[in-house]
Amino acid sequence: MNEPIELQELTSGGVTSAAGFKAGGIHSGFRRDPKRFDLALIEADDVCCAAGTFTQNAFCAAPVIVSRHHLNDRGSGKVRAVVINSGIANAATGEKGLTAAQRTTSIAADIIGCTDDEVLVASTGVIGKFLPLDPFEEGLPALHSSISSSEQGGHDAAHAIMTTDTFAKEYAVSWTSHDPAYEGTTFTVGGMVKGSGMIMPNMATMIAVLTTDAPLSECAAHRALSASVAQSFNRVTVDSDTSTNDTCILLASGAAAPKASSIDVSGCAFDECMAAIKRVCIHLARCIARDGEGSTKLITVTVNGAADDVDANRAARAIANSPLVKTAVFGHDANWGRIAAALGKSGASFDQGNVSIDMMGIPVCRNGLAVTFDEDKALKQFEEPEITIDADLGAGSSSTTMWTCDLSHDYIRINGDYRS
Amino acid sequence: MNEPIELQELTSGGVTSAAGFKAGGIHSGFRRDPKRFDLALIEADDVCCAAGTFTQNAFCAAPVIVSRHHLNDRGSGKVRAVVINSGIANAATGEKGLTAAQRTTSIAADIIGCTDDEVLVASTGVIGKFLPLDPFEEGLPALHSSISSSEQGGHDAAHAIMTTDTFAKEYAVSWTSHDPAYEGTTFTVGGMVKGSGMIMPNMATMIAVLTTDAPLSECAAHRALSASVAQSFNRVTVDSDTSTNDTCILLASGAAAPKASSIDVSGCAFDECMAAIKRVCIHLARCIARDGEGSTKLITVTVNGAADDVDANRAARAIANSPLVKTAVFGHDANWGRIAAALGKSGASFDQGNVSIDMMGIPVCRNGLAVTFDEDKALKQFEEPEITIDADLGAGSSSTTMWTCDLSHDYIRINGDYRS
Repeated sequence: MNEPIELQELTSGGVTSAAGFKAGGIHSGFRRDPKRFDLALIEADDVCCAAGTFTQNAFCAAPVIVSRHHLNDRGSGKVRAVVINSGIANAATGEKGLTAAQRTTSIAADIIGCTDDEVLVASTGVIGKFLPLDPFEEGLPALHSSISSSEQGGHDAAHAIMTTDTFAKEYAVSWTSHDPAYEGTTFTVGGMVKGSGMIMPNMATMIAVLTTDAPLSECAAHRALSASVAQSFNRVTVDSDTSTNDTCILLASGAAAPKASSIDVSGCAFDECMAAIKRVCIHLARCIARDGEGSTKLITVTVNGAADDVDANRAARAIANSPLVKTAVFGHDANWGRIAAALGKSGASFDQGNVSIDMMGIPVCRNGLAVTFDEDKALKQFEEPEITIDADLGAGSSSTTMWTCDLSHDYIRINGDYRS
Repeated sequence: MNEPIELQELTSGGVTSAAGFKAGGIHSGFRRDPKRFDLALIEADDVCCAAGTFTQNAFCAAPVIVSRHHLNDRGSGKVRAVVINSGIANAATGEKGLTAAQRTTSIAADIIGCTDDEVLVASTGVIGKFLPLDPFEEGLPALHSSISSSEQGGHDAAHAIMTTDTFAKEYAVSWTSHDPAYEGTTFTVGGMVKGSGMIMPNMATMIAVLTTDAPLSECAAHRALSASVAQSFNRVTVDSDTSTNDTCILLASGAAAPKASSIDVSGCAFDECMAAIKRVCIHLARCIARDGEGSTKLITVTVNGAADDVDANRAARAIANSPLVKTAVFGHDANWGRIAAALGKSGASFDQGNVSIDMMGIPVCRNGLAVTFDEDKALKQFEEPEITIDADLGAGSSSTTMWTCDLSHDYIRINGDYRS
């Protein structure tokens, strides 16, 4: 690895920050409320190298099947545009749903002037309900003529994919390449995401679109996206449920270096792109956890000293998914016993006499035993918007980080009252 | 298998219903509130064949280590008494905690007149806090002299082990044996349990004690208990957390047939005992789910048509642990999409086009597609205290049942406010 590049965060950056992309969002009739946008279009000026990762849920939705197929069922391909609707997930809709998703790509392709398989689709919303085509037929021509490469275009798209999200989630970084082949070129990676549960159907699917003007090859885009998703979106858990519709797409226009050769999976420029994509994904993933349904706190769980990566993951996931840990944080209670018990049931191997736990940097458990700590200091630190939990298993040298949120009354209100 | 026996439910039955046992409960100082019992003793008139199953949690508590050892680390042995305290879990207490648990057995053994290893111990309460011995030294002599074989003795013991439980959980059945070797003998199995989260430390451990006057051998007691626990307590989930202290003990006095030979692992009498123990365990397990922290509904999840038992278990567990399914039930929302998504992420193999789902007997999904149903009828059925969810994966012939409860505001209140 060469010297680390310096990534510059772009103020108000998003999916249109990288050169070569336009975006927009409108209300098109998937939702009843005419004030809520429900249709987003992200369009590249030319066909792009693209990569995608999709839900592993066996009950996956029709748009996932269609988009996966358009990426040649290997996670990468050539793409011109992404069409996303909110309000209806087009999941559990059988053959009729598949036809609707395919028709959506045809409608968009006709308007844009590309082939059907150069269009990807994603949907989020109520499942088991059929997706109407009228809002695409009527809305897409207007949306297509109004999309722009401005920040506003990105913002509108980010708003159009929101469901129970309380804020739009966008981010972008740029950097000047140190790679001799691209010396002095400024590249940008931007993106948007929706999701406020990791979760699940009704309206809490995760959908992310990332764009870059670096000339990543198909293979490099896929490699960079997969590695970044594994360390970001796949490390967020709000309530342990995964969606039928989760989709993450990366489009690489190459517009920042149109005459340069494409970036393949090795070399300095690839490393730079990886770092930038990972940064954007982690930022957006943390936004999801912070906006977890009913969340009042972002919780960062770090496990060190695990015997191997599998154990590190098991241990971190057990803590991050524990309703008892999450309610304790909501209740401002440094109840590390619940963290210990989550570790104990995780399946990770360790000796309880070697376990250490810190909450918000305060040692609360050493060698499996309680440590006396200043409860007032702990209570004060619980006022912070971010809470850290660090557990060391004393069993090896593997570590990992996960993000989650606390479990509050509002989670129950949001998910108990959802459809009614 | 012989003709099925008829099990008679005993009104106000519990841990003293079977012949040969005394029990009681008192306040002894583990808790601050002098009105709350916190020490229980279950004592057999003579030494019994006994079996035990314990938490798999790697952070297991000191009393679990000691009791497991007294059952020869193979889950069965000879036992005279069980001592249980609530208020302090004696978990995450290291060597000092182990010594305290061992001392507890010595104190009890001295008073009762048996050996230390004929006493089992269990604790439930706050973890990371050391267990004082004074309440045993001062309380056990008084408790020992007040225990009785009356219903009241059983009730007092059942109350003394409660933590966040909102009601004491006891049950007993009796039957007249059809086995020629015990013809006409009436046997009884009774029991008590505490637990109102499956869950975890502070105070939601599951502790169960079962007693029977059938002359089960050690091996038969172990076999019957293990099989019954697998189909009852291990099929309850309140919040997916498992405790550091979970303990389930069966004592078999043989007092109903003192001169008969012992019942081994085959034959009609064993089958009868198995059926009775299983019935008591399932009843008590359903009580835990019904009393799940903040619960307003008992939810019975049945999965049919799974490819194998592992898949059936995965699928049922995914539904029963899904916060989105549980909040939907709390919100009286027949949101089967959340059930479908839970199935999809479970890892069970199936084709979504073969899946059927019923809620409260109402078909809501057939062949993976929505079925139109009477929403008013569904809303009305949500008023019932028990809600059934039935999913058929259409992938084989394995099935299983699990019990859970809904997820309400009160769960957050109970667990968010617990220690403060």
